[in-house]
Amino acid sequence: MREGNVDAVHVTICYHEGFVETVENIIEWKKQFEANSDLIIQGTSVKDIDNAKKHGKTAIFFGFQNCSPIESNIGLVEIVHELGVRFMQLTYNNQSLLATGCYEKEDSGITRMGREVIQEMNRVGLVIDMSHSGEKSTLEAIDLSSRPIAITHANPVQWHDALRNKSNNVLSALSESGGLLGFSTYSHHLKNGNDCSLESFCQMIAETAELVGVNQIGIGSDLCQNQPDSVVEWMRNGSWSKVVDYGEGSSRSSGFPDQPKWFRDNRDFINLRSGLKSVGFADRDISAIMGNNWYEFFKESFASN
Amino acid sequence: MREGNVDAVHVTICYHEGFVETVENIIEWKKQFEANSDLIIQGTSVKDIDNAKKHGKTAIFFGFQNCSPIESNIGLVEIVHELGVRFMQLTYNNQSLLATGCYEKEDSGITRMGREVIQEMNRVGLVIDMSHSGEKSTLEAIDLSSRPIAITHANPVQWHDALRNKSNNVLSALSESGGLLGFSTYSHHLKNGNDCSLESFCQMIAETAELVGVNQIGIGSDLCQNQPDSVVEWMRNGSWSKVVDYGEGSSRSSGFPDQPKWFRDNRDFINLRSGLKSVGFADRDISAIMGNNWYEFFKESFASN
Repeated sequence: MREGNVDAVHVTICYHEGFVETVENIIEWKKQFEANSDLIIQGTSVKDIDNAKKHGKTAIFFGFQNCSPIESNIGLVEIVHELGVRFMQLTYNNQSLLATGCYEKEDSGITRMGREVIQEMNRVGLVIDMSHSGEKSTLEAIDLSSRPIAITHANPVQWHDALRNKSNNVLSALSESGGLLGFSTYSHHLKNGNDCSLESFCQMIAETAELVGVNQIGIGSDLCQNQPDSVVEWMRNGSWSKVVDYGEGSSRSSGFPDQPKWFRDNRDFINLRSGLKSVGFADRDISAIMGNNWYEFFKESFASN
Repeated sequence: MREGNVDAVHVTICYHEGFVETVENIIEWKKQFEANSDLIIQGTSVKDIDNAKKHGKTAIFFGFQNCSPIESNIGLVEIVHELGVRFMQLTYNNQSLLATGCYEKEDSGITRMGREVIQEMNRVGLVIDMSHSGEKSTLEAIDLSSRPIAITHANPVQWHDALRNKSNNVLSALSESGGLLGFSTYSHHLKNGNDCSLESFCQMIAETAELVGVNQIGIGSDLCQNQPDSVVEWMRNGSWSKVVDYGEGSSRSSGFPDQPKWFRDNRDFINLRSGLKSVGFADRDISAIMGNNWYEFFKESFASN
């Protein structure tokens, strides 16, 4: 990350874990912060990004890809925020207590508990992330939330048709409410998978900027660098099924897919910058997309309301 | 219960608790079994009912009114069955990980995890109970389950219109699949509340017997005898909301409603028997409704498939 000039990153610390298991994951991160204090610090506000940048470090912001850590207890929303968590998806592919995931057959929208939890997340400054949610649930979350929400990692479905990608309808509603979309480099979200060209990816960003405005987009790499395939198995299966679910993969290709060759790891952020230049973005807009938009979003989103 | 000749009862040991809290509830029941071994025993099969009856005791069967104890782990289905649990509702009023509750605005049916869990419940012999579920979820559960399911405590909505009562469509599908309906004496499920007459209640049973057959019905009293109002508050609110939900009650009448005068407590089962006689049931059918139908259902339902 230091070689790629990444000053801040939003990391996933939970896919399916309950509260106690999530605290154990946080403890593991605390050990990393202590053992690698020359490289990383925990981030909870933009001041930590300024500080990290100044000292040549990376600020690590915690996010949940599921609401499993708050279990069925709304009081845990404030508790996880106090522990530094700044993003929480309302669903991860499947139905949750709060909303419907994008892999369910039917989407009934935000649940009774979901409405209460959105209010509480708004109050304490925990960002609603709908990356893995169904269309109806996402539109309702945008509508119900009094603060802008995020789709931290997904691409437009119009560019590449995948359950995880988003319709123009969702992208417009998101941006109109001040929300942010992070573009994903995960092969299953890319046109032609890992054969996707940098030009196609950046052209897609340019078209999305036309649709939603250049200040409502950023990078949400969805990069799982050097993670074993057991991680993608956990992501897809958790403990909800006795039969194996291959998610976006298949039985023949069950592990992590290869990254596109222009974004193999954190050192390749420079390639995105030059790709955006090639499709005609001005330097100021490139900096906005590469990080400044997220910086502004973080600045408004993490304090209590 | 002994004074009312109740040989077996299905008790609720969970509304919103997770796995560990549910085990704590079981431990409390174990203490009761030990301290009151002259009156109650734990029941896990019909042999325990035979045994209890022979020795003048009551067999206590455990049931969950929610799927919260299995959390997001399908492996816990077999574990709770081993701990003696014999019924599990897929939802309690709200959306769960498995299905939609009857208080949600929209019902999306059985979820991806729900389909897996129904198969697993069928395998181990844990009965699916849809008393607090939405219509679509209930019809899908009946369809997806390879074994008969139960609606342990509810009445026909045609007799008394309440979110918790069931349509003729549901009652027909339930009975056609070999399932059982238990009639509730909880005032909010009764025509005219606790002013409901015994005659009206028994006439409703007679009409339901016409619709679904006399062998698909029983008593599911929903009796909360000598429980403090804190129990009904927990039932309705759990920890999912910061604002008080009054459920079937209201802010002016927030506690447990009074029981109808012909079913104040377990000693009044005799009144149901005479009420059924008055509306014309034969003795054999009265015995079926008062317990023998549940006995046959228990006999087929609790062993692994």
